[in-house]
Amino acid sequence: MRQAHANETRDFIVATAERLFAEHGVAAVSNRQVSEAAGQANNFAVGYHFGTKTDLVLAIIRRQAPFIEQRRTDMLTAIQHSTDLRDWIACLVLPMTDHLASLGSPSWYARFIAQATTDPALRRLVTDETFAFPSMQKITEGVSRLLPVLPEDVRAERGDMCRHLIVHTCAERERALQAGTPTPRATWEAAGIGLVDALTGLWLAPYTPTP
Amino acid sequence: MRQAHANETRDFIVATAERLFAEHGVAAVSNRQVSEAAGQANNFAVGYHFGTKTDLVLAIIRRQAPFIEQRRTDMLTAIQHSTDLRDWIACLVLPMTDHLASLGSPSWYARFIAQATTDPALRRLVTDETFAFPSMQKITEGVSRLLPVLPEDVRAERGDMCRHLIVHTCAERERALQAGTPTPRATWEAAGIGLVDALTGLWLAPYTPTP
Repeated sequence: MRQAHANETRDFIVATAERLFAEHGVAAVSNRQVSEAAGQANNFAVGYHFGTKTDLVLAIIRRQAPFIEQRRTDMLTAIQHSTDLRDWIACLVLPMTDHLASLGSPSWYARFIAQATTDPALRRLVTDETFAFPSMQKITEGVSRLLPVLPEDVRAERGDMCRHLIVHTCAERERALQAGTPTPRATWEAAGIGLVDALTGLWLAPYTPTP
Repeated sequence: MRQAHANETRDFIVATAERLFAEHGVAAVSNRQVSEAAGQANNFAVGYHFGTKTDLVLAIIRRQAPFIEQRRTDMLTAIQHSTDLRDWIACLVLPMTDHLASLGSPSWYARFIAQATTDPALRRLVTDETFAFPSMQKITEGVSRLLPVLPEDVRAERGDMCRHLIVHTCAERERALQAGTPTPRATWEAAGIGLVDALTGLWLAPYTPTP
């Protein structure tokens, strides 16, 4: 019983932190504010249950990422022999947009990721956590096999652009759904397909050599 | 003399606000904090000189935008008869990246725009200000003429994506330059060319019809 209660408390703290970080940014919210907003009498509840703020950020990612990984693994199994770059890019995008759809509105995870990836140290944490999943390594290899030859700097730049496009398109859509303001696409499914189309064009775009 | 002093004060308040908004977000910083950080004995200095926070945001944009507009007008004159979509997209991107290069490091404008465009009301303000320039209307027409036919939702979505890619690529680069951390591209010029290539691919990407 006591363990079950501790787990519930932990989960409520993580959900509260996700929302506060999504709304105000990770740096702007203290562990004390998270503890208070989660209704903890003890202002050090975050420290007690998680340790540092970085551990709390990690706990937020680890609460959602396994659901996304499950979808990604299923999708990868279905397309693993495909030689169409678009199929592989879909494995990067649709598990995220499908997961966001499953959360209903308001969800906070897309905005949380947008905020966390603004901080260089936390961005590293998010990408390390994401690329630690076996499916992500297979997708990276699959995409690489099907890409035209690109100079190293162009490839790195397009990787960053790919992240910006997914993260900020999802965050803006999540915010609009909560506010009830218009979105270009009617559903997360259509928004995901739009992202896959655009990213395929971005990765295949000819590059201009620079001095 | 008194007028010159008032103008200097105004300009210092605007520069201070740009930096604070870039670092912490527009919503997180009060007019009082801007007044204090700008060394104003009177905590209502922002109110006295500008009015509301929205007026202050507008003043930040109007301090930088004319320099970008000048570059855009010059570039547009040079390519106005081009039928290559890439040339028109370059007019959207390079005046911004060239302006950021001219500011040296640390600059704050790219991060300020990234923060401001996260807020739906301020995003509207930024885009209205930008599209009020005659060159922007000509570029929008030029790009439209050269685009393949796209459904209205796909066109709107790609317009948003275009903004995300420019704004967040520039903001991340500006942050990295200040921190002295690696960037995919060595110069703003190369980063601008990379953006133009990627955006051309994005706009020309085939689209998948959705239900």
